[in-house]
Amino acid sequence: MRISIEKNSTIPIYIQIKNQIREMIYKGVMTKDFLLPPERKLAKTLGVSRSTVVKAYEELKALGLVESHMGKGTRVIIQSCSEGSKKERKVIPLSWYQFFGSNIAILNEHTIMDIMNALGCRNVISFAAGIADPELYPVDNITKIQDKLWKMSGKDMLIHSPIEGYYPFRESISELLRAKDIMVAPKEVMILSGSQQGIDFSARAFISPGDVVIVEEPTFMGAIQLFKLSGAKVVGVPMDEEGMQLDILEILLNKYKPKFIYTLPTFQNPSGTVMSLKRRYGLLELSYKYQVPIIEDDPYGEIRYEGVPIPTLKALDKHNYVIYLSTFSKAMFSGMRIGWVAASTQVIKKFSMIKQMTDLHANAPAQYLLDSFLREGFYESHIKLICKNYSKKRDVMIKALKKDENQCIKFNIPEGGYYIWGKLPKGISQRELFEKASSKGVIYAPGNVFYPEENDGEGYIRLNFTFESIKNINEGISKLVEAVKETIEKSAYSFEDAECFKMPIV
Amino acid sequence: MRISIEKNSTIPIYIQIKNQIREMIYKGVMTKDFLLPPERKLAKTLGVSRSTVVKAYEELKALGLVESHMGKGTRVIIQSCSEGSKKERKVIPLSWYQFFGSNIAILNEHTIMDIMNALGCRNVISFAAGIADPELYPVDNITKIQDKLWKMSGKDMLIHSPIEGYYPFRESISELLRAKDIMVAPKEVMILSGSQQGIDFSARAFISPGDVVIVEEPTFMGAIQLFKLSGAKVVGVPMDEEGMQLDILEILLNKYKPKFIYTLPTFQNPSGTVMSLKRRYGLLELSYKYQVPIIEDDPYGEIRYEGVPIPTLKALDKHNYVIYLSTFSKAMFSGMRIGWVAASTQVIKKFSMIKQMTDLHANAPAQYLLDSFLREGFYESHIKLICKNYSKKRDVMIKALKKDENQCIKFNIPEGGYYIWGKLPKGISQRELFEKASSKGVIYAPGNVFYPEENDGEGYIRLNFTFESIKNINEGISKLVEAVKETIEKSAYSFEDAECFKMPIV
Repeated sequence: MRISIEKNSTIPIYIQIKNQIREMIYKGVMTKDFLLPPERKLAKTLGVSRSTVVKAYEELKALGLVESHMGKGTRVIIQSCSEGSKKERKVIPLSWYQFFGSNIAILNEHTIMDIMNALGCRNVISFAAGIADPELYPVDNITKIQDKLWKMSGKDMLIHSPIEGYYPFRESISELLRAKDIMVAPKEVMILSGSQQGIDFSARAFISPGDVVIVEEPTFMGAIQLFKLSGAKVVGVPMDEEGMQLDILEILLNKYKPKFIYTLPTFQNPSGTVMSLKRRYGLLELSYKYQVPIIEDDPYGEIRYEGVPIPTLKALDKHNYVIYLSTFSKAMFSGMRIGWVAASTQVIKKFSMIKQMTDLHANAPAQYLLDSFLREGFYESHIKLICKNYSKKRDVMIKALKKDENQCIKFNIPEGGYYIWGKLPKGISQRELFEKASSKGVIYAPGNVFYPEENDGEGYIRLNFTFESIKNINEGISKLVEAVKETIEKSAYSFEDAECFKMPIV
Repeated sequence: MRISIEKNSTIPIYIQIKNQIREMIYKGVMTKDFLLPPERKLAKTLGVSRSTVVKAYEELKALGLVESHMGKGTRVIIQSCSEGSKKERKVIPLSWYQFFGSNIAILNEHTIMDIMNALGCRNVISFAAGIADPELYPVDNITKIQDKLWKMSGKDMLIHSPIEGYYPFRESISELLRAKDIMVAPKEVMILSGSQQGIDFSARAFISPGDVVIVEEPTFMGAIQLFKLSGAKVVGVPMDEEGMQLDILEILLNKYKPKFIYTLPTFQNPSGTVMSLKRRYGLLELSYKYQVPIIEDDPYGEIRYEGVPIPTLKALDKHNYVIYLSTFSKAMFSGMRIGWVAASTQVIKKFSMIKQMTDLHANAPAQYLLDSFLREGFYESHIKLICKNYSKKRDVMIKALKKDENQCIKFNIPEGGYYIWGKLPKGISQRELFEKASSKGVIYAPGNVFYPEENDGEGYIRLNFTFESIKNINEGISKLVEAVKETIEKSAYSFEDAECFKMPIV
């Protein structure tokens, strides 16, 4: 038996001994009933203490590879694999990339993941992600509820919940929707692991490779990626200040016969646009006329700072053509991953078949917790709190942007939601600007990730104003404006070149 | 203004009034600045109390549809949609089924979902699902940890965690795996929303429509479904008492050039089989030779009642060909939905791109909780507790099955895991038996759901022994045996017809 010890290694010596003996057993160098050398003897041979060898043998026992009996020494008890020892094949390292499927290859690797990683670096000011302000999390109320729940329902929260969600929670969501004039029964509500999962399920339920889906242009990047991953062709409809342009939509409906229309009608991501009531009726009309379902994504609808609420498409839809998605991630916090879908029971049934296969159900303790949170009436006051706070932050960002006497970033003033959608001076390089801004310690979401064709959107940026502190908003915008100016100077474009902005801007 | 009240309706009268006025505003019957009748007057007209009308008007105000000013009455403040009122289109109800994609259509709708629904009926004895015994959940320890965590890290638990998982938790999992001789760094570990999500991600990362994947026959139903949903052809390799038959596997590897091999080598679901060490080496050899990755699904590996542990494929694999999946759902509880994958960083990177799109990350509080649970050292003693308990339950089930003097259900004795895989007398109808058994109040998993071709597996059933109480196991098996006997009598087959069973049976 040959064992070699590396005294300077970071691997403890007893582990080195264990690993080498284990290897010899697996490879059949030591076969069943092989007697290991006595601990004292091996220790002497290797020049280590006896306790080191004892520890190594203990590890091998715990692995079930050897057994020792008083006075009989330590024996191998496992049948080795003779094949393993005989032929030592030359193994070619696996080239994983040749195994990845064709659709997954189209995904670009940067974007959100980089943005979230950058979030981890605490010295970066991030306007990139759409994250609620952690300072406003209702930690105290949650802690109180948790205490009570674990004492009362600990066991219930650890077992499987039904695939469609914990029923009382579905009731609570149905109540919440009723307050928004969306009249759905609990059985028409299904709990999801975030509303993004609803976009994924829509893609998986409806799209076969080659199908067309219609989205607003720009739109939520995650939706574009998921639809493409399912093999769809993603066609964008341009927007104006009232939302999706319906005359263009109708042309596309005729041309493509799409599987569905995906829309964020209220405080649209990224543009902040609110679809007008007239357009909402018009969109439903087209949906009925061409018999195309609508996926209404509404993560921001309740976060309104001013103006009159406009009913959701789901509230206006009398014929169950609308699949409605929403979430607690924007109004509350994102770490729980709880969202929901409200739709025809036929859709719920299909979605629950997909959920059964993918993650079975949403985290059960989170469902119990949020159910209690709603039932205790904490939700409404929380919405008021965040609206007050975010509208202030929005104003701070606007003021900071206006400080720039050249107004080199044009922007809209959203009535709600999370984002300011800004237009850059003409001809500025998105990549150069991003690099310049990050080097100054500020990041944002580049406009092109929100377009089905990434060459579009080059001139836009999305700025989130909910996550950072007021101090950081001021500092970050000032750095960003600096970065824009320096990038322009470098590329010799002037501010006057700025093109007319299509979104409502100020 | 015409409002009609239904006094006997379950909908409160103020809601009826609110809904009808809202409808008239949306449809443009009442346009902007329309003056609503004074509350007292409308109350009189409708024959309801004034407070009812006040309540209805309050609701309309909350919706942002009307505004009232002292002395000036209540006015509509929202621009109505004239189009909505003009053309009342005849809308055809949407036929959802024509929209569902082609792959999703192949899913059969019964199986797990029905089984889980049946679980909801408390008067059914269920041997169907694979659920841990709720009586053993470590509720006290969890409650203690929760208390501490919410007080110390409340805010951190509510914000987004990184896509790949909370880093300290990835470290803890890496430690846990090290104890099983799986040497992976934290960056090679990714946290999933249940290990089933890892099967889904494998399907989505690797499979393009038309690809072949290889599975054991029988195997986990969820895997078959997910692979088919991604458009794969699923090819089964028969097993014997040592696991997958490698000579047949090699023929299939030559014939199909599959994307990967999916295997549950330890306490296989549903058969309970443990792949021998020799076969494990042999399987790895074939994987290297044909350059085909292996997906090793190991939810049950730690739940061993007797015999010697055999190293996982991942521990034996020196060339990173194995993608290893596991979970807390079987050893602990399933409601949290936390599992993990350990694999090459190239695979982790691709999986995190998919996770970013689908559910962003696993529930953050659950990650913190389980991390603490591992670090406090509660996990190992919990495993000991469940092994002791489940081995007892397994023995009770075996004893109950042996009580039947005709031995009409043949079965194996698994050394660990969750299931007894039973063989029915030849010619018995699975459907008839299931109906008969359910009518007696006992359910199980019919064998055919575990085969890629559902016509196979007709003669088998899977019995879970972890979930039900000892009393229920005795009662349920006795009813099940009765059901088998009655079904046989009906179809006039005799016990002697029973075919030789391919699995190790007793």
